[in-house]
Amino acid sequence: MSRPTLPPRVTVVEVGPRDGLQNEAAQIPTAVKISFVEALAAAGLPVVEIAAFVNPARVPQMADAAAVARGITRRPATRYTALVPNPRGLAAAHESGMTEIAIFAAASETFSQRNINQTIDASLSAYATLVHDAHALGIRVRGYLSTAFGCPFEGDVPQSRVVALTERLLAMGVFEVAVSDTIGVATPGQVADMVEALAARVPIGAIALHLHDTRGTALANVLAALEAGVTTFDASAGGLGGCPFAPGAAGNLSTEDLLYMLHGLGIETGVDLDAVVHASGVIASSINHPLPSRYLQAVLGSDPR
Amino acid sequence: MSRPTLPPRVTVVEVGPRDGLQNEAAQIPTAVKISFVEALAAAGLPVVEIAAFVNPARVPQMADAAAVARGITRRPATRYTALVPNPRGLAAAHESGMTEIAIFAAASETFSQRNINQTIDASLSAYATLVHDAHALGIRVRGYLSTAFGCPFEGDVPQSRVVALTERLLAMGVFEVAVSDTIGVATPGQVADMVEALAARVPIGAIALHLHDTRGTALANVLAALEAGVTTFDASAGGLGGCPFAPGAAGNLSTEDLLYMLHGLGIETGVDLDAVVHASGVIASSINHPLPSRYLQAVLGSDPR
Repeated sequence: MSRPTLPPRVTVVEVGPRDGLQNEAAQIPTAVKISFVEALAAAGLPVVEIAAFVNPARVPQMADAAAVARGITRRPATRYTALVPNPRGLAAAHESGMTEIAIFAAASETFSQRNINQTIDASLSAYATLVHDAHALGIRVRGYLSTAFGCPFEGDVPQSRVVALTERLLAMGVFEVAVSDTIGVATPGQVADMVEALAARVPIGAIALHLHDTRGTALANVLAALEAGVTTFDASAGGLGGCPFAPGAAGNLSTEDLLYMLHGLGIETGVDLDAVVHASGVIASSINHPLPSRYLQAVLGSDPR
Repeated sequence: MSRPTLPPRVTVVEVGPRDGLQNEAAQIPTAVKISFVEALAAAGLPVVEIAAFVNPARVPQMADAAAVARGITRRPATRYTALVPNPRGLAAAHESGMTEIAIFAAASETFSQRNINQTIDASLSAYATLVHDAHALGIRVRGYLSTAFGCPFEGDVPQSRVVALTERLLAMGVFEVAVSDTIGVATPGQVADMVEALAARVPIGAIALHLHDTRGTALANVLAALEAGVTTFDASAGGLGGCPFAPGAAGNLSTEDLLYMLHGLGIETGVDLDAVVHASGVIASSINHPLPSRYLQAVLGSDPR
């Protein structure tokens, strides 16, 4: 049997400062967030999602998004992005100097209504306007498509719906869709099937995977996706975070675990793994629990077992 | 690109009661161990490694091996095995009614000398006699080959040495070699390369993989091995355990995580995942830390994040 060919280079999108932190109970000082973002960029991560310009009453941890965006010293080679749900968020992101944002759609109707208070269709109509307005400001837009592999409320999500929504997001002008396993239920065959179905309709380079390690399958799912040609993966330093609106959802794929595997496979990322461990250390003391990254636990010798 | 074919059925070898427990600080009552083994067998696990007949001064947790072996109610369809290092252990295992045992060799010279106090060559000579004597008693023998993917003392371990030692173990009459990533450093390409090299010299059906999730790569490594044709994998309920003699080594692959992925891939195991979760619950209250299985944490909602 011939072995699948893997891509020589992968882009790792660091989501720790946003997806990782937004669910943390302890309020992280703005200065720590800034240091965290700067350490991640210094590690060579090509894209860092630094904050969410959302309603601070809904997500208090993100109330200082503008201060983080204004406070960081930017590296020319790093792309900085932030989650933006609506025109108010877009204006705030623009005023804070952001030139890239991300919007957050869902593949499950129930999840969409509970998470962003809109039907899928209403949200996509609003996002189409938002993307148009962002482009007019010179801001490019990434799309998340959450619950693409399963929903905490509805269970299975039809693959055909994920493909159709991905096409619709790309058609409105997002440059990339992060197809997301929000609750960490995916297994590798499902991932390979999904990527094949997507690649039949959209350029593979426009597909990113955003995986959670809730059931331990994230890296196996990455491997299946690599074999299917995906070259962009989201990850969170230290394995920080989960989803605040999905019951039982926990565990972004850890950046350290992802890099360890990618580098072991001989895949270039341009990221210094040791420096990511250092970045996780910057945030660790402000978090009231151990960071779940397996690699980080092994390096720190703090594995509780 | 054509997708690799996966095997339709996999044998999961449950090592929790031995490899999982041997490194636990808290002394587990014999009655709890017996209940744990019985719950694992009831879950449908086809092979359960129940204990190690080793020097109780060296591994106090295994001092009641004979009592566990005599205490369990055996199911006809389940194979029960135990680690045996020497003739004294063989005699004890035989007297306790064991009809299958496992021996423990190493692919790293330093690890062999530190762990079992013998050179690799001396250990294999002694094991050849042990296997012969076991067969004379009607006991079949499985072989572990530890540190096959890396050594905590020596670092890289040559693939050619792993292949040669596997051949030697099979030549002395072990029915299967569990090629072991004792410190959890393997990545999927390395696993695929190793399996290919092994399969060129020995029957693939005689190769099992014993993986640790120390750096989060265990399930990705399972996927690579499945694609290469391996059909037997060791795992530990709840992710119990590590290696007491390897610094920093922690985290047997969790049985729950393995089953979740295998079943998601449509691969039959004959094991009831919910019943394994129940079995982990039997042992959990006797362990002084949370069990690290990601799946178990998700099910129990006890994930610390």
